[in-house]
Amino acid sequence: MEAPRIYGELKKVLVINMVDITSPSNPIIKEIKSLYRKKGRWDKKLFIVEGVKMVKECIDNSYPLKYIIYSQDLFNIDGGKELFDSISSLQNLKCVPAKLFREISEMGTPQGILAIAKFRVNTMNDINKEDNPFLLLLDGVQDPGNMGTIIRTADAFGIDGVVITKGCVDVYNPKVVRATMGSIFRVPIYHEEDGIKLIKEFKKNKIKTYSTSLKGEKYIQNVDFKEGGLLIIGNESKGVSETLESIADDLIKIPMAGGAESLNVAVASSIIMYEVMRQRIQ
Amino acid sequence: MEAPRIYGELKKVLVINMVDITSPSNPIIKEIKSLYRKKGRWDKKLFIVEGVKMVKECIDNSYPLKYIIYSQDLFNIDGGKELFDSISSLQNLKCVPAKLFREISEMGTPQGILAIAKFRVNTMNDINKEDNPFLLLLDGVQDPGNMGTIIRTADAFGIDGVVITKGCVDVYNPKVVRATMGSIFRVPIYHEEDGIKLIKEFKKNKIKTYSTSLKGEKYIQNVDFKEGGLLIIGNESKGVSETLESIADDLIKIPMAGGAESLNVAVASSIIMYEVMRQRIQ
Repeated sequence: MEAPRIYGELKKVLVINMVDITSPSNPIIKEIKSLYRKKGRWDKKLFIVEGVKMVKECIDNSYPLKYIIYSQDLFNIDGGKELFDSISSLQNLKCVPAKLFREISEMGTPQGILAIAKFRVNTMNDINKEDNPFLLLLDGVQDPGNMGTIIRTADAFGIDGVVITKGCVDVYNPKVVRATMGSIFRVPIYHEEDGIKLIKEFKKNKIKTYSTSLKGEKYIQNVDFKEGGLLIIGNESKGVSETLESIADDLIKIPMAGGAESLNVAVASSIIMYEVMRQRIQ
Repeated sequence: MEAPRIYGELKKVLVINMVDITSPSNPIIKEIKSLYRKKGRWDKKLFIVEGVKMVKECIDNSYPLKYIIYSQDLFNIDGGKELFDSISSLQNLKCVPAKLFREISEMGTPQGILAIAKFRVNTMNDINKEDNPFLLLLDGVQDPGNMGTIIRTADAFGIDGVVITKGCVDVYNPKVVRATMGSIFRVPIYHEEDGIKLIKEFKKNKIKTYSTSLKGEKYIQNVDFKEGGLLIIGNESKGVSETLESIADDLIKIPMAGGAESLNVAVASSIIMYEVMRQRIQ
């Protein structure tokens, strides 16, 4: 009658041995918490990737990681065991108690897995301007869901990169990262505060620059996108800023027949990316 | 020296006179609170429309209203005074104290205006199947933002109606209503629990039915949408249910070149609606 109790004790010892971090004041835990603020992320050039699907995408795309944190909860999630097996030999894999994990998680139902990824900081100088590239320039896109969705569509349509300028939501905001559904690990992201400088650089390289605008003169289906280009996407309520609009080569618009005056910014960007794709595969 | 004080007193009296409801237990206030739950909305066939822009859209589209509730906060909002002037002669306009308004509001910064609108309950029998209509059928669309955005795009592209079937988020959920940006007052919305029955009815009327599917055989740019059709849009993670997919005439897909396996459901629907529009204006 004693055996089950001894076995129970043994199991408990094993579990305790596996835990690498127990204290909320451990420097790694403190670092993770600091990454929920933009300042913390940019000071350290690190961001949070949470959940089975997202961490798997991060690994599959060989995205640079600093740590992976997990708790026992991971083994209760679909695909959790498989993910653990694929990362179990990695250095910097840390086990924390489920209670502590829930403290550092932002998800309603934490899946017990979270990675700290390193920024890939690219600027406009890193953009390859040969071979008719097609890129997006985001000017004041504020909603995390919209930015994430734009990056996801850019990935699906093989867009060559997304340039984030001043006034946009931080691309490493956890809500943006989640909305990309993993595309943030694949689409080249460039940071360039000064959109004007970038547009001038593109024009100098004979790459056409387009601004979405309600004042647009050309419908997108009549624009020739085959030669590549830079598409400027504006703020949710104000659109593209006047300065950028005034230096773009063409103001373009989506044909509309019905009652709504405008489309959601992620929808509008996605439709233009589809049109670019449609013309290029013809 | 007395005059300003008397004038102040007078103003106070006027404001008190204007308030129609003061108690949180007033039946109208209780009714509004009940409309934040689906059951409350469907029992009474009423829903909440909040904020200056949304109430204005509701009025401009002559959408049937039961009440409009406002507070003094309305006059501190851009366009608030103009909106008030346009509705001041309406019956069933009720003024409530700002504090009580904030209690019934769902917005972070309440704008002091909220309307209770009546459902327009249409079923598949109300759909006009003449003149090559193009409609959407939503099958298990769960996210309020996605459903609202789909309705907004349907409005922009002049789609003839959106059919909501069982398993979808409630179209009268305040988050859906807000995401439509007013398009819910213009796009015909039909409720039909049984998607199969509807699809069969369309087929009988010789209207083509299309299901979005990763197994799709035809790319959307090669499908002839000029003759109208019914486009089935599925759940965010599971796509269109197998039963509906199996009875649709064509399985269609969007061409993709990059790394992402799928698009956000509102983006995918919007791209197909654009393709329909593009073909029809050619």
